[in-house]
Amino acid sequence: MAATMTTQAVNACPRTTDAARRRIFKAHCGGVIEVRSRVRLKTSRDLRKVYTPGVAEVCRQLQNHPEEAGQYTWRDTTVAIVTNGSAVMSLGAIGTKASLPVMEAKAVLFRELVELNGVPILIESREPETVVKVVEQIAASFGAVMLEDIESPACFEIERTLQERLQIPILHADQHATAVAVLAVLKKTAAFVQKPYRQLKVLIHGSGASGLAVARLLHVDGLRDIVVCRADGTRWPGSASLSDATEKTIAGLVNPDGVGARLEDLLNARDVLISTSSRCQITATHITMMARRPIALVIANPDPALTTDELDAAGCAVALDGTAVNNLLAFPGLFRGALHAQAAQFDDEMLLAAAEAIVQATPNGQFVPDSLDRQLHSFVAHAVSERALLIADGQAKRHVGR
Amino acid sequence: MAATMTTQAVNACPRTTDAARRRIFKAHCGGVIEVRSRVRLKTSRDLRKVYTPGVAEVCRQLQNHPEEAGQYTWRDTTVAIVTNGSAVMSLGAIGTKASLPVMEAKAVLFRELVELNGVPILIESREPETVVKVVEQIAASFGAVMLEDIESPACFEIERTLQERLQIPILHADQHATAVAVLAVLKKTAAFVQKPYRQLKVLIHGSGASGLAVARLLHVDGLRDIVVCRADGTRWPGSASLSDATEKTIAGLVNPDGVGARLEDLLNARDVLISTSSRCQITATHITMMARRPIALVIANPDPALTTDELDAAGCAVALDGTAVNNLLAFPGLFRGALHAQAAQFDDEMLLAAAEAIVQATPNGQFVPDSLDRQLHSFVAHAVSERALLIADGQAKRHVGR
Repeated sequence: MAATMTTQAVNACPRTTDAARRRIFKAHCGGVIEVRSRVRLKTSRDLRKVYTPGVAEVCRQLQNHPEEAGQYTWRDTTVAIVTNGSAVMSLGAIGTKASLPVMEAKAVLFRELVELNGVPILIESREPETVVKVVEQIAASFGAVMLEDIESPACFEIERTLQERLQIPILHADQHATAVAVLAVLKKTAAFVQKPYRQLKVLIHGSGASGLAVARLLHVDGLRDIVVCRADGTRWPGSASLSDATEKTIAGLVNPDGVGARLEDLLNARDVLISTSSRCQITATHITMMARRPIALVIANPDPALTTDELDAAGCAVALDGTAVNNLLAFPGLFRGALHAQAAQFDDEMLLAAAEAIVQATPNGQFVPDSLDRQLHSFVAHAVSERALLIADGQAKRHVGR
Repeated sequence: MAATMTTQAVNACPRTTDAARRRIFKAHCGGVIEVRSRVRLKTSRDLRKVYTPGVAEVCRQLQNHPEEAGQYTWRDTTVAIVTNGSAVMSLGAIGTKASLPVMEAKAVLFRELVELNGVPILIESREPETVVKVVEQIAASFGAVMLEDIESPACFEIERTLQERLQIPILHADQHATAVAVLAVLKKTAAFVQKPYRQLKVLIHGSGASGLAVARLLHVDGLRDIVVCRADGTRWPGSASLSDATEKTIAGLVNPDGVGARLEDLLNARDVLISTSSRCQITATHITMMARRPIALVIANPDPALTTDELDAAGCAVALDGTAVNNLLAFPGLFRGALHAQAAQFDDEMLLAAAEAIVQATPNGQFVPDSLDRQLHSFVAHAVSERALLIADGQAKRHVGR
């Protein structure tokens, strides 16, 4: 039997009707964000403060005191939302222009949930070094960079290189914010099925950015039986065949000896299925091979490998999809916290603090908190900021580095 | 005697007091702009329209119909405000971070005057090809690009190359929007001193981006006696010594044969002084050598070569500074009009149409319209848009190309 505990969003993904489609397009007409003024501009007196000649006083001050740039500009509350349109949700490489509505939606969430400015930046290149160079050149405009919907393994190199070169927090949301959300929900669901969280046997279906990041963060948090398979249901290859350093590192943490090669073997006696792929190699029959009271998180958006209804019917104790287990639970608070603490980078400690905050903010009787609850995001931001300040003070030990 | 006709802004540049300074810094605290949501985000129903899964419908639509990207995103009302901080107002190469307050102020003006989104983009390079490549890579995010506060001659190459490579309007505001403002004011002041506009003998002091662009546009509009001198008061050199193609072209249009080499000779019997430089080589004595009822536009911001009071005392019939003659009169309407017409570029016809619209919108008894008058900018936008659509229809003849 499926869980009786649900969230507002869990069963909220009906087939889109014509009327619903019209409402969606109406909402996006002309875009969902705008740049507005924070100051009055009615009189020439206002103009002389905001614009010339008054603004020159501020410029001179920042020329002499560059450290005050965050104080007299919007920079320290502004996040570049960067994509090259190469892996947009589960839609694939749909290109920059078609990806802009997602970037705008993220900016809406930044504003509405944590009062940050999100600025969509579309980069017309799938070459990692080009993406890195462009972000590097424009980074002075922003307090932080959220990488979004970038294909793997390019995303690993882009994130790592940028963080090496820049002193502002860089985060690939599809990796780490997704991993934080999964980790938080998994803790809650483990308690519900009465299994010890760290002893869960996990199969991760999908070896893209999200799948590998989930594997990594679960390992960082102490889980030791993690198997990763590709979207087609075959075992993710060992490190010898991998070109990217991040992939190689993760390969060393997952797929224990003796694990099978086919989906039937891989799912056998697993407690948890985390599917990050839309490809439908997994059937109800496979689910029946899992351990008792299995947990299924099918988080590919907008098309999960199976629906939560199918998973319920196949006997899952908990089945949640990407509308419930979404990086939206994590990214607003992660950025707000990092910016507040003026952190130079995201650290695993900050990711784990965010996950723990989400767990604590989840009401009893639910697996997932309400993602529109401003207090949730404020709570996550506070936890991240506190941890970042501790790290800055050198008081926190580091986990396995990314 | 100086003109009795004034504008709100003309005499509005007192020395900044401590109290005024505090008010300026208070206005800029935390920045003067923000990204806001245009849609409601209260319920999970809202979330599913704006964000996942609804947004995926919009992405799919744009993937199949990229021509609709302007309709369902903010792109076609969004202008990148691009600088490398190499020539910020008259402050010089103060760098990207110190220039951000000016870019934010421009974004305030875009929002308040013509309801466009301005997005400051700071590029960390003074190499023209790097600036071009970065803008090219991120151009899909924007409907137009305003180049701002970039040194000459790099600004010429950057603008020309970008416009060759991109199918969206590119405009260096310090050049062309300034030239439009100067041209409009010069027409009004010529009428006031009762001299035929096209026969005015003009000296342009300052051979940077603004000075040369003013020279070019005045020539495009039919003026034939234009002399350009450098900031130090010596004659601007002939084309042989110039490296940039734009500079070479302009050199062929100005400095008629027999013009002297020193400031005394250059200003002798001139009707108009247009100073775009802060360097104070020009004195009251020089002004007395000009033709009767001389016009002086000293537009360097925030520090003109002489104050309007000094120019009045030296016998100018009209003396206006950069708070009155400002590219703010032109750039909002230029961009609004070009975006409305979906123009692929700015054309000289559009610049001249903007100037003529400013002249028409200037109330009787004033040299300059109120730059905060929304109707002015709407009027300019309309004129620019009409002209752009005519050009698109192939019905308008082209002037000398930029």
